[in-house]
Amino acid sequence: MRIDRTRLEGTIEELGRVGATERGGLTRLALSDEDRRGRDLMVAWMRQAGLRVTVDQMGNIFGERAGEPGQPPVMMGSHVDSVPTGGKYDGQLGVLCALEAIRTLDDQRVRTRHPVTLVIFTNEEGARFQPAMIASGVMAGKIALEDAYNARDKDGRRLVDELERIGYLGSEPCVPRPLRAYLELHIEQGPQLEEEGLSVGVVEGIVAIAWSRLTIHGVQDHAGPTPMRIRHDALVAASEVVAGVRGIARELGGELVTTVGNLTVTPNIVNAIPGRVALSIDMRDPSDATLDLAQPRLDRLVAEACRREGVTYALEHYWRVPYTPFDRDVVAAVERAAAAAGSRHRRILSGAGHDAQYMAAIAPAGMVFVPSRGGRSHCEEEFTPMDDIEHGANTLLGAALELAGGDHWTASNPPPGSVRPSGAD
Amino acid sequence: MRIDRTRLEGTIEELGRVGATERGGLTRLALSDEDRRGRDLMVAWMRQAGLRVTVDQMGNIFGERAGEPGQPPVMMGSHVDSVPTGGKYDGQLGVLCALEAIRTLDDQRVRTRHPVTLVIFTNEEGARFQPAMIASGVMAGKIALEDAYNARDKDGRRLVDELERIGYLGSEPCVPRPLRAYLELHIEQGPQLEEEGLSVGVVEGIVAIAWSRLTIHGVQDHAGPTPMRIRHDALVAASEVVAGVRGIARELGGELVTTVGNLTVTPNIVNAIPGRVALSIDMRDPSDATLDLAQPRLDRLVAEACRREGVTYALEHYWRVPYTPFDRDVVAAVERAAAAAGSRHRRILSGAGHDAQYMAAIAPAGMVFVPSRGGRSHCEEEFTPMDDIEHGANTLLGAALELAGGDHWTASNPPPGSVRPSGAD
Repeated sequence: MRIDRTRLEGTIEELGRVGATERGGLTRLALSDEDRRGRDLMVAWMRQAGLRVTVDQMGNIFGERAGEPGQPPVMMGSHVDSVPTGGKYDGQLGVLCALEAIRTLDDQRVRTRHPVTLVIFTNEEGARFQPAMIASGVMAGKIALEDAYNARDKDGRRLVDELERIGYLGSEPCVPRPLRAYLELHIEQGPQLEEEGLSVGVVEGIVAIAWSRLTIHGVQDHAGPTPMRIRHDALVAASEVVAGVRGIARELGGELVTTVGNLTVTPNIVNAIPGRVALSIDMRDPSDATLDLAQPRLDRLVAEACRREGVTYALEHYWRVPYTPFDRDVVAAVERAAAAAGSRHRRILSGAGHDAQYMAAIAPAGMVFVPSRGGRSHCEEEFTPMDDIEHGANTLLGAALELAGGDHWTASNPPPGSVRPSGAD
Repeated sequence: MRIDRTRLEGTIEELGRVGATERGGLTRLALSDEDRRGRDLMVAWMRQAGLRVTVDQMGNIFGERAGEPGQPPVMMGSHVDSVPTGGKYDGQLGVLCALEAIRTLDDQRVRTRHPVTLVIFTNEEGARFQPAMIASGVMAGKIALEDAYNARDKDGRRLVDELERIGYLGSEPCVPRPLRAYLELHIEQGPQLEEEGLSVGVVEGIVAIAWSRLTIHGVQDHAGPTPMRIRHDALVAASEVVAGVRGIARELGGELVTTVGNLTVTPNIVNAIPGRVALSIDMRDPSDATLDLAQPRLDRLVAEACRREGVTYALEHYWRVPYTPFDRDVVAAVERAAAAAGSRHRRILSGAGHDAQYMAAIAPAGMVFVPSRGGRSHCEEEFTPMDDIEHGANTLLGAALELAGGDHWTASNPPPGSVRPSGAD
């Protein structure tokens, strides 16, 4: 059983036009008008495929293909929001390959013991509302619904108000539900599969992630008549922190990655000494122990940089997720499916957080990776060759089918609710 | 002859309310609605004082108090725009002390040989449209009117369109005009007068200023799965530049000041490696030769920081004004006026650019400084004690009167256009 490559390619192109940038990328921030249009398109396709569509309190969208009564579903999906000037593969591909897998089950008249549910999670990126993966976090009981509702974007708009505005504030409780398994196809966002000429990564787990935010308070003053001797420049202290955060990865080595991605200067004009700088620190490693070493180094780095410049600061370690191993049976099913699809594959770790990370807390979970050209993502140049996408989609289909307990429909074994041809008994 | 301290204090308070911030500062960006309201208030006061008000092509506002026919005026003034969350003394004080001086001439029934003209210059700060002092620059023939009109704010709005929007696109040519002298009172914006317990600075000149802008192009990518070995992080290179710019001041020493005041990251989110950083470099020194040494150091610093990180860049030295000495006769007149007002004073250099810098190219120019508490300005904490303001205003009045050739009105020597009492001949 194979997915329809041409049909899949068509949906990738069509969804990719919603929020498309001039340079081939995508800007579809969570709960923006573009996000609404992307969701509307997906819902239309899900309804066309005969799925029962529901929306929960966090705006997560579900489309269920029926199985036998009382069986927990195999859920698969990802997200359709993007970072600003991001790419059109991150998230989208997981949702569209899941849709394609379901359409293929229909084409092939397959019925499954377990229902198969397509899911689209709200605000996975964390580009507009923080933290990232907020909606799967609520579903897994790791984030309070109230806190998620009160998350604000940079213009002060609340998540719940934006959910309502775009018409995706649903009524289903956003709570753990019985699941046979959770599967997510996603781009690797790193260079490994491409470097090794592989089409599919069988994801064993997701690295540990620690997010911190730092606000430095200096003394805003005029850049001209203020002698160097009396300056307390928040940006000078911040620049030492940026260099030092890079240094932590160099010193601890291994697979640790450290990034300052967000940095905002106040008042941010040519002729004023910066009075305030706010910045983010993102640190990740396969080992929780490495992050346990990195965090106190960050604390010391910030304290010393700020002491040297005579500025005050507030440093908050506000989000930490431990290393998440995926379910061994699900990982094995993905691996068998990759082999059966004839895909060149290997086991791999994810360096990025995904909704699968939270879902692993409430269901047997696993992921399928496809390569990212040049290892690049969260940028307009993000690209995955169609050959690899086809391998990934077939792997996803195969794993879902195995986990859902698939069987072919026949005249004597028709799909539920179908009318048997008269006289065929 | 003394200014009216109570009346001056009243205008400082009233103008200070237009665009006031909660913490006692001011946000009145050039050509914003707040700027329009500040201008409208000034124009009303100027008309009440009987001044002939005109507006030129750059939105500069003039209010002329008549002198003898054909004589070039003594012009005095400053600006009413502010930086974001700036203070209510920078600029405002120069305009209001000039108005107070003119009101005092009226109170004392003084007529002058030279007309006395109050001027309010457009967009002195450069916080919204760049470069700073753009309108006096056009008047002095240093900036083309066309270029000034096409300057855009960060939202892409053109200066000329904003001039028109707020109703201050005048028709008088913005060109050099015959002037007896140009005088500007301003806060020092540095700590020297306060540290030495002085009320008045007799400004001898303005330091040389060099502005550069740097754009660094790295490779935007995901902060998680992108190994450190393949990163090209624009912010890491930028942070080395920020530290290095501080280093240039340390190495060359003396009175050189160097500042990175503006820094903007793209896409500026927690989990993306910064793909682009744009930043400003501001360097100032009393000696042009020092800036000639600093600039190639900046070039090398940027080249090396960007080479190390494997990123490309564009560095542009887009604005440079040489050391500006003020007119010796005007400086001497200011010094005599400070002594006559009984003000503790000394000669001083300005570390900040002022409209007086451009005006010095087309007129004998000079400035009066008053102290800044803690040397602070361009911030909400900006403050000058009223005692010092009174000394400064009296110094400005005395210098203007000397330069304008003042004389008292009498019954036999009435103000121009006044009706002599019948039978008084």
